[in-house]
This record gives sequence, structure tokens and C-alpha cells, in this order.
Amino acid sequence: MKKILDGIKLPSDVKKLNIEQLNLLCGELRDEITEKVSETGGHLASNLGTVELTVALHYVFDSPDEPIIWDVGHQCYTHKILTGRDITGIRTEGGLSGFPKSAESEHDIFVAGHASTSISAALGIAQAKKISGDEGSVVAVVGDGACSGGMIYEAMNNAGRSGTNLVVVLNDNEMSISPNVGAMAKYLANIRSKESYFRFKDNLEHTLLKIPVIGKGIFSVLRAVKTFFKDMFYSSNTFEHFGFTYIGPVDGHNIEMLIRTLRRAQSIKKPVLVHVNTVKGRGYKPAEENPSKFHGVAPFYKENGELKKESADSFSSEFGKIVCQLAENDEKICAITAAMTDGTGLRKFSEKYKNRFFDVGIAEEHAMTFAAGLAAGGMKPVFAVYSTFLQRAYDQILHDASIEPKHVVLGIDRAGIVGGDGETHQGTFDVPVLTTIPGTVIYSPADYKELRTDLEKAFSAKGVQAVRYPRDSEKDIPEEYLADYRDFNYFKGEKDCLIITYGRLFSEAAFAAKETGASVLKLGKIFPLEQNPVDIAKKYSTVLFFEESVKNGSIAEHFGTKLSEAGFKGNYNIHCVSGFVSHMKAENAIKLHGLDRESMKTAVKEALK
Amino acid sequence: MKKILDGIKLPSDVKKLNIEQLNLLCGELRDEITEKVSETGGHLASNLGTVELTVALHYVFDSPDEPIIWDVGHQCYTHKILTGRDITGIRTEGGLSGFPKSAESEHDIFVAGHASTSISAALGIAQAKKISGDEGSVVAVVGDGACSGGMIYEAMNNAGRSGTNLVVVLNDNEMSISPNVGAMAKYLANIRSKESYFRFKDNLEHTLLKIPVIGKGIFSVLRAVKTFFKDMFYSSNTFEHFGFTYIGPVDGHNIEMLIRTLRRAQSIKKPVLVHVNTVKGRGYKPAEENPSKFHGVAPFYKENGELKKESADSFSSEFGKIVCQLAENDEKICAITAAMTDGTGLRKFSEKYKNRFFDVGIAEEHAMTFAAGLAAGGMKPVFAVYSTFLQRAYDQILHDASIEPKHVVLGIDRAGIVGGDGETHQGTFDVPVLTTIPGTVIYSPADYKELRTDLEKAFSAKGVQAVRYPRDSEKDIPEEYLADYRDFNYFKGEKDCLIITYGRLFSEAAFAAKETGASVLKLGKIFPLEQNPVDIAKKYSTVLFFEESVKNGSIAEHFGTKLSEAGFKGNYNIHCVSGFVSHMKAENAIKLHGLDRESMKTAVKEALK
Repeated sequence: MKKILDGIKLPSDVKKLNIEQLNLLCGELRDEITEKVSETGGHLASNLGTVELTVALHYVFDSPDEPIIWDVGHQCYTHKILTGRDITGIRTEGGLSGFPKSAESEHDIFVAGHASTSISAALGIAQAKKISGDEGSVVAVVGDGACSGGMIYEAMNNAGRSGTNLVVVLNDNEMSISPNVGAMAKYLANIRSKESYFRFKDNLEHTLLKIPVIGKGIFSVLRAVKTFFKDMFYSSNTFEHFGFTYIGPVDGHNIEMLIRTLRRAQSIKKPVLVHVNTVKGRGYKPAEENPSKFHGVAPFYKENGELKKESADSFSSEFGKIVCQLAENDEKICAITAAMTDGTGLRKFSEKYKNRFFDVGIAEEHAMTFAAGLAAGGMKPVFAVYSTFLQRAYDQILHDASIEPKHVVLGIDRAGIVGGDGETHQGTFDVPVLTTIPGTVIYSPADYKELRTDLEKAFSAKGVQAVRYPRDSEKDIPEEYLADYRDFNYFKGEKDCLIITYGRLFSEAAFAAKETGASVLKLGKIFPLEQNPVDIAKKYSTVLFFEESVKNGSIAEHFGTKLSEAGFKGNYNIHCVSGFVSHMKAENAIKLHGLDRESMKTAVKEALK
Repeated sequence: MKKILDGIKLPSDVKKLNIEQLNLLCGELRDEITEKVSETGGHLASNLGTVELTVALHYVFDSPDEPIIWDVGHQCYTHKILTGRDITGIRTEGGLSGFPKSAESEHDIFVAGHASTSISAALGIAQAKKISGDEGSVVAVVGDGACSGGMIYEAMNNAGRSGTNLVVVLNDNEMSISPNVGAMAKYLANIRSKESYFRFKDNLEHTLLKIPVIGKGIFSVLRAVKTFFKDMFYSSNTFEHFGFTYIGPVDGHNIEMLIRTLRRAQSIKKPVLVHVNTVKGRGYKPAEENPSKFHGVAPFYKENGELKKESADSFSSEFGKIVCQLAENDEKICAITAAMTDGTGLRKFSEKYKNRFFDVGIAEEHAMTFAAGLAAGGMKPVFAVYSTFLQRAYDQILHDASIEPKHVVLGIDRAGIVGGDGETHQGTFDVPVLTTIPGTVIYSPADYKELRTDLEKAFSAKGVQAVRYPRDSEKDIPEEYLADYRDFNYFKGEKDCLIITYGRLFSEAAFAAKETGASVLKLGKIFPLEQNPVDIAKKYSTVLFFEESVKNGSIAEHFGTKLSEAGFKGNYNIHCVSGFVSHMKAENAIKLHGLDRESMKTAVKEALK
């Protein structure tokens, strides 16, 4: 029973509350979010940090006429609740998406699963309003983490002098500011959000310059970015150079101050940047103490924050182990991540090989060209990256690493279907996209042992070498299909039907073949395709290709072309992922798209009829 | 006869000259460049602007051990000459590439045809040096134009505190600084490059802050970016916030000062930014007066700078005309370019519809998401972009414009083979890449009339609508093949052989069909493929698909898949572009890759044997 929250069906209900009630509402929202996320898992810390901010935004602005665009989008839970949605079962099949989704609500005006896009999108909407004479504001809420992405700068370059009613809220949840500076900052924020601001500006900047801000021993990229921003706020005001009016920093948990500041921003009628300090995990002790663990978290016990199930091994953790071992014997191996040290399994590498490890922040374009530079300098870099985020670096792989081939290993994590994150995070495009680039080699292991072989091959070859593997653990494979996997393995069955597949789906194919008598061709090196597997496939009347990829540009399609060129006249059926895959358990999506063993068995039986 | 230049075979020869000789050398280099570019066309203004800078760089640094990375790369002509290469016939078949190319010289350590990549690449090489204990410097030369690209910021975030011997030279060739500020700046540069710099820094910054820098009436993005940089240099030093030591600005045509400054930069042994002011077109009056015309220029008369051939109509100019006309009747049409107003034919639109025109700078990622934002706000944006640069925005098309479909029109210029720019600029990837994205529609007109129809269709549809067209003019088409082109047109011949193609190659196909009796299926809407054309093709014994695209993911491949699914048992041959295409006339490349009418005729005759 949540007294205030139960009465909120729409943002307009928020506007009726007084400050005391708003504060009570925030407490109830925290309870609701913690409770529901503890059941399903999801993004917790960032959502707890933005409760007051979201309430204040909906109090001040008129969504959806004054739309609020979330960057990255995983901090939108409060927004979902205030716009009349129940987050029970969020990120699970049938429940809400964990990201903004226009199909759910008119208040979700722009999708956001990848970082650093919000100012570009918001500026577009704001320009549209300006052209049509609509005076409403458009709000973009950006976390400081997203500020390492180049798109933020590209957008700022265009936004500041656009003359639009754009309000950028910088949700700054990690900068630790010393008490002195903090006190000064608050003082300044107070003055700055008053009418007298403009007159006092020059004097203030003079004062600001006296504040010491650059600490010693600041080395990591994340720190560098944050220091840069910190410097901008306190010493010079780079945002104002871009043309923004700057207001802040504001205590992101003081609802009264937030409302006053946002109202001021709304009234300025030109691009404004509001700098808000928030605390990740605010109000839930385990999350405040360990915001990283509770960033994206599995189901946990609300009482103590302990996970309901300890995390198992995974392709990511195995990848990390293998790369560490390889690096021990080869001083040239370097590892790069774009803000995903833990997600990609590189934590240990980062500690053990400090000088050969590079976390570049959310900056996949730079990461790829930087990797090509390391290779040009004689190193052997591996860029470990989620399939979906590698999409950002297509041009860099092609232009910087392939036209003049550089030996860069890509460790492509979360390849194929990913599960709860849904449409914005699927790894179903990397294969089609990489195979357009001349010279690329792609491996897709079915188990950990093959992952190791593939990485060894990748590190000892030339050019762009991609090893792609799914989220989660290796799957069971029937004993008679276990082998020392090579570039391809052929398991002959008694029936005139051949299943071709690779990676995680090999487990499904092996079970289906065992039960139906079909043959299986397992690809290990999936690109470029060799002639041998084509010659094997050619002898069958029916060939079925199963693949966790969109169809256009898939290996299945390339294989079909080669079959046709080889004069194959049998039946060739491609089973791929169709369109964008929404959030549900990966195994369910695999079933839904006809890629599980039962679907395979049905297809084989159909072929043999 | 060039007295000094004739004696230069290697950078080490430059190091032997005294200042007087270096100045003479610069004059001779200017003559050589102007003369040779007047014959072949090429990038002139930027090369004339960087003569002294390049000479000074080779005087101070030891290339290739201390490599120089050029961003974008088209200003590398002096570098090519000083490293022993003859630029006669540059950009033409058999001549040098107009961009750095490692196959030509060990001094070209990193390819660069796309902007904003140099700091990432240089940082990679610098980190490799650091890891291996090599104390040499790595130099990146970045133009101010490239600074609107997000990669520059991503790289700066990572570079400043890297502890590497990285020297970034900012080649600032367009900022106009008022005489007062200029004088002060020179004074400061002088002080700053002296040993006393560090001690005086605090005082200097205080002084710097008193300089007024933000002019009135500065609106365009380019200006915004430049103002941002100008502000950085003079009011606060943002580069130093990133961790760079800043030196500058330096007169980029004073060789003595350049050498002194670069030596200082080399000696600092940590990341340094050297800010150099240069004049585009320096020393050749027509280019100084009209640097934009002489940025990338066709062959001209050296005496007066007049073009040898007036520029003809082109798909680009027609595109501009059509979009202007459509915008007259539809107030929702907006146009976006990424620093290519002239190249994409949008000059007139930019003048006529100021409030609906957006030049975002070199920032394709932002451009695409901004377009999606405009669409979300009810506008009908067209993003006019070269095929090769659209590669930068793959993720934005997919994630921001397609998962939740936004009606964005893409005007894809320079689609297919491009000619003199070579490998880094080919438009042979956009089709494979776009067809991976569910919901995309692609048109490829064969002539101007069809370009109009396609654009009309694209503006009246939904989702991402791409219209792609080649560089240069429409081609001759035999009269009997002229038609009111539709989504597909079928021209039945008497022979049992079908040629399928689209776009510019239709001209080749029509001539080939006319002479051989083959049938032709011309696609207009090339994606998604409809069933009708497949049903037509199915009836033939031989189907030949010709396409200006790489093969993997091509329409030819998708068509083949559909044919196979339709039970086609005939011969299907795909003729596509193979690998990366080097610089030569487009028509020659088309021949080389077997896509011209003669190759088509041979293929038809072969099939009919």
C-alpha cells in the first residue's frame, strides 16, 4: 500500500502535490523500484539515484508535449511509473521493457539503449518545435558516463547556438567533490539560478578560477573525462563556450531546489545545461555502498542485497581467463574495453597487466582506431566489446583496420540473442556487417574449449580477426558430438538431410540430429567460407542452415551463394532471426525464431517427408 | 628546374638545409604542387597551407621512426614529395594516391581518408612505443575542420593523461582572429614556448581571460566549433584540462618559429598540443582568394586558376534542385549535411530555406540521430551524405531510426565506384550494410528523372528511405530502354538469358542487351525485394546480376536467396566489386571489375554457348 503513489496515474497527478507529498512520493517510488527489481533483476542504482530528478522533471515539464529523452535510458523506471505503468516483471516477457519504448507510452518519445544519443535526438525535436513555432521545451537527461561518447560533443557543437528551447540535464552521479568546493558550488548554484546571474557572471568566473580542481594521481580515462567536466564547471565554463546557459550544480536529491532550478531552465527559452549531482543507489544501503554491483543486477534479496543465485561461469569470464593466460606468454598482447571491464571479463587482466590494459570509456569508434594504432605500433590488441556496441565502430573497422590490414582481435561478447535487454542490445547484426568488410575473419565457438582455440588462432593470424560468443554459459552437447573442433566439423548421420550451424546453436543442432538421423556440419571459422564444407553440403538433397543473425548478409546467405555457384540443385532453407527481437529470455527468443532443437527436428522431418 | 627540391630524396636531406634554404624549398614545393595539381586536379588549398608545417615536421622529427599521421590525409602532398615521391599524375591510375598509403612508402604509417581519426591512431602507436620503451614521438596533424568529429574528443579524453610522447598539431586554417588578439596571441606563443612557460602559466591564464573572444552573430555550426576552439585557446585552456601541454598559436608560415616550437614539443616527452595558424591556399593567389573552390579542384589553368572544363550537371546538382522544389510545397522538408553543402548539391537549399537547413559539421553520427529527432518532431528530414561517410552512422540508422521507425530520407551521394579518391572513399558498402537493418527501403535511380520519382516516393513513405546515386552525370541509355521507370522494369529480349542490375549500370546493361538479345530486369526500388521480379527471373536458364557493391550482402546475393527459395534451378552468376577499389577513373574501375557493357556481353555470350 503506497499512499501517494497509488494516486498517481499520470504526470498531471504529480503536479498537484506539495513539497512534503513529493518527498513522500519519492520514498514510495524507491520502495517500489527496489522491490520490483529485486524480483526480476534490472538497473537499480541509477534508478534510485534519479527518483527526485524524475519527479521534479514531471512536476515542471509537460510530457509528452515537452518530451523527456533519457540517455542511456535504463534510468527510466521512475518515469515509467509516473506515466502510469506498472514495473512488475520489467525486462521479462510480457512485462515492460527496461528502456524507453514508444509502443508502451506516448511519454517514451525516443528509444535509447545505446549511450550518448540524447542531445542529438532532443535537438532534432527542439528544432522541429522551433520551425513550427511551438514554444515548449525539450529535455535530454544525460549521465556523466555517456559524456565520453563523441556524439555528445558533436551534438553540443550544434545545440548551443541553435536558439531552441533545449534543456540538457547532466546527471552527474560519480564526481566526488571535496567539501569546500562543494560548498562553494552550492553557493554559486544558488546565485546562478537567480535573475541576477547574468550580471554577476563575470565576477563569478573570476572567483571560480581560484578553486583548485585538478587532483594528483588521476590517470584512468573515466577520471580524465570526469576531471574535464569538473574543470569545465568550476574553472572555465566550456558549456557556455558552446553557447549553453549553465546552471548548477544542484543537489539532485533536494526536490524543492530541483523544481526551482528546472523552472528557471524552462523559462530561459534557449539552450540550458542543468548540472545535477545525484548519488547512485540513493536510499538503498547495499546499492549506495556498491553501486557498481547494483548497476545492472540479477534478482536479489531485498533485505540484505544478496543475489538469489551466484553468478556462474560464462563465455565472458572464460574469455578473460584465456586472454590473461595468453598475455602471460606474449608481452605484445593488449586489451581494450569501452567502459565494460567487468561485463567483458577483463577485470583480472586490468589488474594484472595495467600498462597493457585500456578502458577508453564509452567510445567504441576511438577504441577501434586506437586498437589499429596499437597494431601499427607492433602490439597485438584485443578489443573486447558487446556485439551491439561494435555497431558504432563499423567505419573504423573498415577504414582504419581493413583497407590497410591491421592485426586487431575483436572479442565480440553478447553475440546473437541477448535476453532481457531487448531490441536495442541484440547481437544479431555483427556477422552481416563484418562480412561486408574484405579480409575479415570470424570465428564462433560452441564451447569454452573452442573459444580458447579460436582466440589462439586469432592472435597468431593477421588482419581483423573476430571471435564472437554468446552471453551466459556454454551449453550441453551430446557426447558423440563432442570433438576437437576445427574450422569445420562434419557429423554424418544416416539421413539425406544436413543441418549447418555454428556457435551456441550447435548444441541444439547436435540434439536434433541425434534424434532425427540428420547430418550436422558445424562451422568454427564461419568467415570467409572455405570450399570443403560447401562440397560436403552439395551432396545432400536438403540443407538447413540455422543462425542467430538477421538473414540479409548472414553466413547462411553467403553459404547459399557458394552452394549455388557450386551447382547445388537441392533444397536450401535458411532459418534466421526475423527483425528486431524484443526482451525475453534468450532461450525463449531462440524458440520463437525457430532456432531451437524442436524447430530443427520439425524442419528435418518436413524435409524427409 | 627546382634547385633545392631536386636535391631532396629523403627527409634526412631536409635536415641538412639552413633556414634560408628551407624557405626557398617551400617556394619550390608550392610551385611543384600547384603545377601538378593543375594538371590532374586534387586537393590544392590545404596542401599550399601546410608546406612550411610539413617541412618543419620533417626537419624536427625522424619519420618513419617518429611517424607523422595526417588527418584527413589529403594535405599530405608535401609529405609525399619530401619522402621521395613524384606527385605527377597524383590521383590518376598508376600515379600516387591522394591520401597516405602504406604501400607507397614506409613514411605513410596510417591510412586516412575519413576525418577525425588521427589522434586515436597516433595514441595507439604512442602507447605501443611506451610499452616497448621507445622514447620517440608520434605526431598527429589535425585540421580544425576535423575537430567537429566526435572521435577527436574521444581520443583527447584518452590521450592527455596517457604519459606518451604524443604531439598533436592543430592545423588551424580558418579562424579569423582580430589583429589585437592576434598580436597578443603571438606574444603569448613566444613566452609559452620558452622554458619559463610553466612558471608563468598562472599569470598568463589570468591575462588570457581578459581577451574578449566571442563575436556577435556567430550562428553556423562551423563557427560554433571554431569559436569553441578559439575560446579554449585564449580564455581557458581546455586542452590542458584534458592533460595536454599547450603551445601556441604559432605562425604556420614562419619556418624558424615552427621548428623552434616543434622542437620544444618534442622535448616535453608527454602529450603536447601545438596550435598552428595557417592560410589555406597560401602563396597561390586564386586559391588564397577562393580556398573553398580550390579545396578539391578539377584540372585548371595555373596562370589564372580557371577550370579547364566547366563543371557539368550531376546527380548531386539534380538532387539539390529536386529537394528545393519539393521543399517549396512541403514546409516540413528539412535538409542536413555533414560539412558537404556544396558536394551534396545543397548550396541553394541552404540559402533558400535557412531555417530548415542544418550543416552539422563533420559529424555523421550526430547528423543521423538529429535527423531521427527532427522526424520524431514531425518534420521530414533528408540527410544528404556520401556513401562512404554514412558508414560512420550505421549504429544510428539502426538504433535511433529503425528500431522505432523514424521517417528519415537518406540522400546517398557518391554511391558505387567513385574514382580518384580511391579505397577510402568508395561507395560500395552502403547497400550491404543498409540491407541488414529491418525496415530500410532503398532506391537506386538510373537517371535524373528517376531520381525525382524516387525522392518523391521516399518523402511520402515511412521509416528509413534511402535514395542512392553515383557521382557525376547520368549516362546515355538507348532509346528503346528509356521508360517511366518504376520499382522494376522488365525489357524482354529474344534470348534465354537475363541481366539484372540497377542504377548507373543500367546504361551498360541496356547497351549489352541491345547487342546480344538478352533480357534486362532493371530494379528501381532495390530493397526490400518484391516477389514479381523473382518470378520473372525464375523462368530463365541463366540469370546474371551486375552490381557496384561488394558481393557479401549485395542485392545480388539477396536476389539469389529469393530465387533459390522460389525453386530456381538455373545458373545464377553474381558480378560484383571485389575487395577495395584503388584510385582510377570510375569507368576504368567499372571495366576492371567486369561491370561494363563489354564484360556483360561476354558473360551473356558465355551463357548462351
